[in-house]
Amino acid sequence: MLYSIIMAGGIGSRFWPMSRREKPKHILPLVQGTPLIEATIRRVLPLTPLEKIAIVTNDYQKRRITRILPWLENRNFIIEPVGRNTAPCIGLSAINIYHHDPQAVMIVLPADHIIEDDDVFRQCLQKAVNVAKAGDCLVTLGIPPTRVETGYGYIQRNANVEGFTDVFKVKTFAEKPNYETAERFIQSGDFYWNSGIFIWRADVILDHYRRFLPELYDQLKEIGDRIGKSDYPRVVKKVYRSTRGISIDYGIMERAPTVKVVESGFGWGDIGSWEEAYLRAAKDEHGNSIEGEHVLLDAKNCYINSPEKLVAVVGLDDIIVVQSGNAILVCHRKKAQKVKEVVDKLEKMNNKKYL
Amino acid sequence: MLYSIIMAGGIGSRFWPMSRREKPKHILPLVQGTPLIEATIRRVLPLTPLEKIAIVTNDYQKRRITRILPWLENRNFIIEPVGRNTAPCIGLSAINIYHHDPQAVMIVLPADHIIEDDDVFRQCLQKAVNVAKAGDCLVTLGIPPTRVETGYGYIQRNANVEGFTDVFKVKTFAEKPNYETAERFIQSGDFYWNSGIFIWRADVILDHYRRFLPELYDQLKEIGDRIGKSDYPRVVKKVYRSTRGISIDYGIMERAPTVKVVESGFGWGDIGSWEEAYLRAAKDEHGNSIEGEHVLLDAKNCYINSPEKLVAVVGLDDIIVVQSGNAILVCHRKKAQKVKEVVDKLEKMNNKKYL
Repeated sequence: MLYSIIMAGGIGSRFWPMSRREKPKHILPLVQGTPLIEATIRRVLPLTPLEKIAIVTNDYQKRRITRILPWLENRNFIIEPVGRNTAPCIGLSAINIYHHDPQAVMIVLPADHIIEDDDVFRQCLQKAVNVAKAGDCLVTLGIPPTRVETGYGYIQRNANVEGFTDVFKVKTFAEKPNYETAERFIQSGDFYWNSGIFIWRADVILDHYRRFLPELYDQLKEIGDRIGKSDYPRVVKKVYRSTRGISIDYGIMERAPTVKVVESGFGWGDIGSWEEAYLRAAKDEHGNSIEGEHVLLDAKNCYINSPEKLVAVVGLDDIIVVQSGNAILVCHRKKAQKVKEVVDKLEKMNNKKYL
Repeated sequence: MLYSIIMAGGIGSRFWPMSRREKPKHILPLVQGTPLIEATIRRVLPLTPLEKIAIVTNDYQKRRITRILPWLENRNFIIEPVGRNTAPCIGLSAINIYHHDPQAVMIVLPADHIIEDDDVFRQCLQKAVNVAKAGDCLVTLGIPPTRVETGYGYIQRNANVEGFTDVFKVKTFAEKPNYETAERFIQSGDFYWNSGIFIWRADVILDHYRRFLPELYDQLKEIGDRIGKSDYPRVVKKVYRSTRGISIDYGIMERAPTVKVVESGFGWGDIGSWEEAYLRAAKDEHGNSIEGEHVLLDAKNCYINSPEKLVAVVGLDDIIVVQSGNAILVCHRKKAQKVKEVVDKLEKMNNKKYL
């Protein structure tokens, strides 16, 4: 059996004030007017029927998601009592799938990625599923880089995997590099962007938890023992809270000897900030990308997203102006990463109405 | 008899989006939470009882003013059918006062000035009234400059007027100077800031209209002949529309040989833009002046006025952010004068809901 697991627990706070606790990034129509999570679900539907798709998220976001996608049912959700990075999130999904079918293959996808060619995407996934079925490895999709990019992690490939075209053993994972390193990666020709999309059998990934994250493995076992029992929600709540927040990349992928990468040229992007939304957006002759009513005087290369209010910009270049609900962001484009700190500050002030 | 005429026809479009057609600058609590027009009226009440105070404005703004100052009556308003600079505005007032009492002295005041010492202000006005009563001159208040200021007009004094201390004949009026000229004015010691506050007898100023603005004088006479008659509103509407928009400074003050200036050290200011509001406002240790909820990261010397929405500024210095109703202004402080052009643009687009 084949499952799709869509990770949708994050808020995407770099997209504040559009993104909020109850309106996370993957709900936003950042591209072509469709919420990213909806595009993600529709993209895998031809591979995995709806009853085999599960969204891992919290109760908050579940309510919000079902409001825009009312055809989702309770069984399409795996609820995290708290957010704890990707290793616990994927582990919780794996233990649930394992309960129904230990050898089931699971596709693990972030809810908020941009993918340009859905057909090629599914072809690559199908190939990865075929590789994963053998049960001797973890599989990930590697994106051939199209530019020097310091915002993504990289994967270095090793030898070809026999019997498959464009499937390679993985030599190393590299975190977000600086510019010179990224340049070197691309010149070398054997690096891919790390898509954060994974394909493996439930039993195989759980065995990797046992080897590399034994404490988390025990916690997942404790949860797994209660699946289908009346105290499952209580146990999940208690045990999951005590797990350590660690990423699957750091916890398993970088350490596992058996990772394989499928070269995947389907046009991929992870829009991480308003700056990246600007770079991807259509622009007028002054380099401005504008959503909403506006008056611009002496303003170039600005990103304006304000569907509710008119925005006038006078004498400023390279700025981001985003208005949503009760808040306004005015940010230099080069500082778009710092928007997360605004949210951190609001959290510290416990100013919930802006979160 | 003594009258106070308060000119309140302008919008103050440099204070958009706070200032709007129906919410002009003099309605805004730009200083100490009191609308500027209310402060202006209260300031002259000890000199001229309420029934001798008239506000010259349009129907629009009259409604708005009476909403915040419900103790004003119809007789406290002189209605301009259209806005036409200060010469027609003052002429219309003069002709109305002349009808009741030709030799009445009238004090003419803009509605939106800042005055720090109300007692000294009234003492200066009283002195000016005494000078004006003789009927041989036009009187204005001159403010001893406290800094090199290129945003105001200047008045050069001549010889002392006999019988009065600190009252002088006027040598010349000078328009807003450049920095070097302003410096020279101040070093010379015989220049004042032109306050735009005037004191004269109704018959005397009308005689000056006859001499220097004869066409307008005839138009005012035509209006004056209908005062108290049923067709007055119709005639005002028709005649006033055809008047030429010209300032009293350019039309009369700069050409009249009989102008006197009263040295007036009461602390005066005409806040002309958000930049000047910033300069006058209290600031925090980073030079930011902030009204409303906010989060600032790497932001210095900013002016933020957003009582309705939280504003986050990231990585930007010297900017103005003003939110009001359905619009947001983001402007470099050095470009604050250009806010008027935003309003001009909206007018050209005929986008009334933002005006």
